[in-house]
Amino acid sequence: MARLVLKFGGTSVADVDRIRNVARHVKREVDAGHQVAVVLSAMAGKTNELVAWCKEAAPMHDAREYDVVVASGEQVTVGLLAIVLQSMGVDARSWCGWQVPIMTSGVHGSARIQNIDGAHLIERLEQGQVAVIAGFQGLGPDNRITTLGRGGSDTSAVAVAAAVKADRCDIYTDVDGVYTTDPRIVKEKARRLDRISYEEMLESASLGAKVLQTRSVELAMVHRVPVLVRSSFDDPDGPQPSLEGPFTGPGTLVCDEDEIVEQHIVSGIAYSKDEAKITLRRVADKPGIAAAVFGPLAEANINVDMIVQDVSEDGRTTDVTFTVPVADFERAKKVIEGAKETIEYEELSGSTDVVKVSVIGIGMRSHAGVAAKMFSALAERGINIQLISTSEIKVSVLIDAAYTELAVRTLHSVYGLDKQ
Amino acid sequence: MARLVLKFGGTSVADVDRIRNVARHVKREVDAGHQVAVVLSAMAGKTNELVAWCKEAAPMHDAREYDVVVASGEQVTVGLLAIVLQSMGVDARSWCGWQVPIMTSGVHGSARIQNIDGAHLIERLEQGQVAVIAGFQGLGPDNRITTLGRGGSDTSAVAVAAAVKADRCDIYTDVDGVYTTDPRIVKEKARRLDRISYEEMLESASLGAKVLQTRSVELAMVHRVPVLVRSSFDDPDGPQPSLEGPFTGPGTLVCDEDEIVEQHIVSGIAYSKDEAKITLRRVADKPGIAAAVFGPLAEANINVDMIVQDVSEDGRTTDVTFTVPVADFERAKKVIEGAKETIEYEELSGSTDVVKVSVIGIGMRSHAGVAAKMFSALAERGINIQLISTSEIKVSVLIDAAYTELAVRTLHSVYGLDKQ
Repeated sequence: MARLVLKFGGTSVADVDRIRNVARHVKREVDAGHQVAVVLSAMAGKTNELVAWCKEAAPMHDAREYDVVVASGEQVTVGLLAIVLQSMGVDARSWCGWQVPIMTSGVHGSARIQNIDGAHLIERLEQGQVAVIAGFQGLGPDNRITTLGRGGSDTSAVAVAAAVKADRCDIYTDVDGVYTTDPRIVKEKARRLDRISYEEMLESASLGAKVLQTRSVELAMVHRVPVLVRSSFDDPDGPQPSLEGPFTGPGTLVCDEDEIVEQHIVSGIAYSKDEAKITLRRVADKPGIAAAVFGPLAEANINVDMIVQDVSEDGRTTDVTFTVPVADFERAKKVIEGAKETIEYEELSGSTDVVKVSVIGIGMRSHAGVAAKMFSALAERGINIQLISTSEIKVSVLIDAAYTELAVRTLHSVYGLDKQ
Repeated sequence: MARLVLKFGGTSVADVDRIRNVARHVKREVDAGHQVAVVLSAMAGKTNELVAWCKEAAPMHDAREYDVVVASGEQVTVGLLAIVLQSMGVDARSWCGWQVPIMTSGVHGSARIQNIDGAHLIERLEQGQVAVIAGFQGLGPDNRITTLGRGGSDTSAVAVAAAVKADRCDIYTDVDGVYTTDPRIVKEKARRLDRISYEEMLESASLGAKVLQTRSVELAMVHRVPVLVRSSFDDPDGPQPSLEGPFTGPGTLVCDEDEIVEQHIVSGIAYSKDEAKITLRRVADKPGIAAAVFGPLAEANINVDMIVQDVSEDGRTTDVTFTVPVADFERAKKVIEGAKETIEYEELSGSTDVVKVSVIGIGMRSHAGVAAKMFSALAERGINIQLISTSEIKVSVLIDAAYTELAVRTLHSVYGLDKQ
């Protein structure tokens, strides 16, 4: 007997037929004797429709009212799943965010979960009742509905799992697990990982892999909630992952690195096209220059990722290059141009025709030469590295976007990730 | 300066453009210096869609979950109206039923409003903030969402008006007031009434006129809330009803009879096609026979309206005729047939080809002969009366449905209701 939280996204609950399929997954776990809480998104497309209505009502609108409108989507799916489960003889009830309550910060539209008192839910779960909980939404300090921002249902699921002390949080999604890289690029050779550590998953999420929302991985890591990424298209009555002994699929278990027996030095190759590069030439090389450049960008709420400042050649000027999200590219250029007098640069140039390719692996901590191997493999293929950034468990490089596929395939092979 | 509650139905909020039109009505009242609360329905068609999904999920479903799903509709419209009002510079916020809270009974799907603590709303209204409140929904004793049943938004509006001690509750609908009869039948001659008493409106509502929900009129009568029925298609910037001095249109004011200066004996002619007639012939005429017939119907939750028991001719048997709603006709016949042994009747016959025509007017209390005039007028036109029922302020007759238009036109003329 285990306590499980199952999360289903918008495509899994897009209509009543699909909700019926979700119910079969839930019933299977109940029949196996498990205690089950379910977290749902709104029907696919519904949130977009609601957001469009808000924009039509007024392009600039009160985030509190936006939350009221948009949160109606999950209210529909939780009620419908409870009805279907009951019709299958499974005791179930729906919970809106404010009923649990899922307490959040007051930042409407992108609130953060602050507290879930799991005692009441646990009581119901122990009585054998399935809790069907609206994801993506919560209750702010002002007693008004909040939403967590796009993809927030993953975070809801992990937070509920932490609150009810679940043995596992199963995220049903439209892929069947976490891969060594994007299978669309490295076709037959990409491998599904049986396990991946929280740290690696976190780097993957922030480096462009879209399987889980970054915040949900952070939460899972902090609360040590094992997260199983699996496909909602699996046959509900097919083979299931074991809860005891060595983990075998379907799906990928995101867990503590101690639980990963056979570790690879590198576990995956990620890439992100959401990068734009800005270069400032011949910036006056004096103390405080970094603050002069990046202060105004921070104030404009623009997230700067990779930064390189060249060694000054003449002792008086230097070049500064950095990346920002593609959506903020034009705005970032305007901010810099507006601060030209303070920054004292000669020329501003930029490009969105770049891609960030990253090598990720907790094994890097104990193995030297991972970065060197990357640089030489790319050099051999004639791929020029424009920027480099590293962390304890990843190396990222910015390259010309035209080389994306070549770079990813090369690295996937070089680090021995290709399927045997 | 007055305090007003404005209610808009589903067709008035069917899309963002129409919501913008609603906002113009609201802004006009705010600009005139009034305190305004607004009560909204879901977008037209939306509730039907949500109900259909519940039925698709399971034909027999938990009313508590049905309420969760269906109540999402008003949540969308209140958020959108608040956004539009804010964009016009009007301070506004939305309120879900559970936020006010509108406390109801626990009968999910057709709950009754039990209590609304208006103090908090009044505080906001006095600060000049428009309260945009979701109609049709409330919070049950189990802390779960309830709904009031179809048309419940009228009731929400009147209940809110009572709670905040509003000077008037304006129901914006798709007709421009209450008429002496259905204008589709008595074409140019039907007149819009400037005023009608609560009692007459209550009879009209329960006798087939669909302008206001019966329960909302009851509430208005109990709390003495003046209700203005007016058209949502009126130009928001056109002439408005006066709050002081004699009431003049647009619309019809439903109010205390003391406030109606020029009273007619009869104020209107109503008709209802939602009647089915059942006759039991040669029922054993013995004590307890009424209980034997109507007990099983009550147990089956079938509402019996008109009842006539003939005087027994032979001292041993009698005929019993009664009416039920058309939707319950087949079920009622089955119930009676199932109790044949207890009732001891010889023959059961029935018809849905009947109509109930009613003459309504508080003047009847003090004027004799209203019923006699009705019977003779119908007799002169050769219309046979099958059943009669009366109350203090109305006389209803059941006739062959083929004579509906003739009977309504005749009575409209006989009681002097035709337009001059």
